[in-house]
Amino acid sequence: MSDHGSDSPDQPDYSGRRSPAEEARTLVSQMAVGHLATVGEGGDPWCSLVVYGPTAGGDPVLLVSSMAQHGRNLLADPRASLAVNDPKADGDPLDLPRITLGGTCVRPQGDRAEEAFEAHVAAVPGARLYAGWEDFTLWVLEVQRVRWVGGFARMDTIDRGEYGYAEPDPTAAGAAKAVDHLNADHATGLLLIARELTGARGAVSAYCTGIDRYGIDLACTGAGQSAATRALFAEPLEKGADMRPATAALVELARAAQQG
Amino acid sequence: MSDHGSDSPDQPDYSGRRSPAEEARTLVSQMAVGHLATVGEGGDPWCSLVVYGPTAGGDPVLLVSSMAQHGRNLLADPRASLAVNDPKADGDPLDLPRITLGGTCVRPQGDRAEEAFEAHVAAVPGARLYAGWEDFTLWVLEVQRVRWVGGFARMDTIDRGEYGYAEPDPTAAGAAKAVDHLNADHATGLLLIARELTGARGAVSAYCTGIDRYGIDLACTGAGQSAATRALFAEPLEKGADMRPATAALVELARAAQQG
Repeated sequence: MSDHGSDSPDQPDYSGRRSPAEEARTLVSQMAVGHLATVGEGGDPWCSLVVYGPTAGGDPVLLVSSMAQHGRNLLADPRASLAVNDPKADGDPLDLPRITLGGTCVRPQGDRAEEAFEAHVAAVPGARLYAGWEDFTLWVLEVQRVRWVGGFARMDTIDRGEYGYAEPDPTAAGAAKAVDHLNADHATGLLLIARELTGARGAVSAYCTGIDRYGIDLACTGAGQSAATRALFAEPLEKGADMRPATAALVELARAAQQG
Repeated sequence: MSDHGSDSPDQPDYSGRRSPAEEARTLVSQMAVGHLATVGEGGDPWCSLVVYGPTAGGDPVLLVSSMAQHGRNLLADPRASLAVNDPKADGDPLDLPRITLGGTCVRPQGDRAEEAFEAHVAAVPGARLYAGWEDFTLWVLEVQRVRWVGGFARMDTIDRGEYGYAEPDPTAAGAAKAVDHLNADHATGLLLIARELTGARGAVSAYCTGIDRYGIDLACTGAGQSAATRALFAEPLEKGADMRPATAALVELARAAQQG
């Protein structure tokens, strides 16, 4: 069985996978808890848990107390980096996606402060409770450099421009549920997609392992072999609700190919 | 309802709760994933996910590649701090226990290197695969200072001596299962303990919310009120298997008090 691509001339020719910058933006938008490295006394590095919400451009907004060590550290030296992963994901943590956002924290003023505050509480609603307390400071981590690790031997470094320009995947929040639904109720359709659109002609079963705005990933088995394949949507999805019609369209495309 | 203490003269008079140092040692022994802050180029703080295993004294042992940024950072400046929490725990992450271990990484030699390696792979078995690769270095983070946050407004700073001397709670690994078992099968016994040993005389229900080597925590309700109470074991437990007889002994003690 071959991967999607040359076997499927009908499929569009954009890259078909989220870029490292999109992966980073998606992870940052999905999570609200990370770990912050700051500069402590004498330059000692200090690591601590923080909650954050990202701005529209993906810069994490923090609201931290000057009574916490990281709060004191930022007031003395605004350099910081924030590491984000999905700690509830299953599997070897060294083989799961994670990122570090490095940059400098700034205290937003005026309208920017209001936007930053709204970005924070959108992800951390409880922060409204202590936002007005005197010892709390709003910080925006202006990201200069992103280190993305997708798993073993998959990594990249992204600059501010690329990171800020990329979009979080709008289907990410509903993806796990969509995968469950496809596997529970659409096994026949998945097998048809695998056979007709991904080149896995000999597949006898196909199991969905992932879905994103660009396509779906399948684990196929047949003739004593197994393979990971992928089918692409006709165009990138713009919202979570697009997953259902886009997947149905793939099944129709596969059915037409079978009969054609 | 009153908390355990003056109402129960038969209970022993040690403090009855894990100290912050014991909490820290217990969390470090339970987890194997944390976030490391290191010193990057120009002093920039760098945060990244690492796996670790603790030595007998609680110092985290890392095995990191010099191709990873934190690996390069440590070779240039061995100062580091490791933040550990239980990311799968339910609840507000700012109200859950977490610690930061600050200190300096050293490369252990001779027997110490072997001990350190065994400590690492005991927690990270997969590390045997890449341990011999040339670019991997074994580091022991010699902990100088521990910052423990137990939740909102519960925090402490612990020095190396206190941290190294404290023991991880041997019941921690089995505690969640024991709590489930007590609530599923021993509701009557828990209520008896609540009424007779914790001063919650008017309780009509008692639900176990936690167990540790020193005692059990109960949520009691009755007469339109609710209260958190605690009953202590006769002596600190030495292993997970002690939870069952120690809890049975509390029920017996409560029964004797009821009849006495």
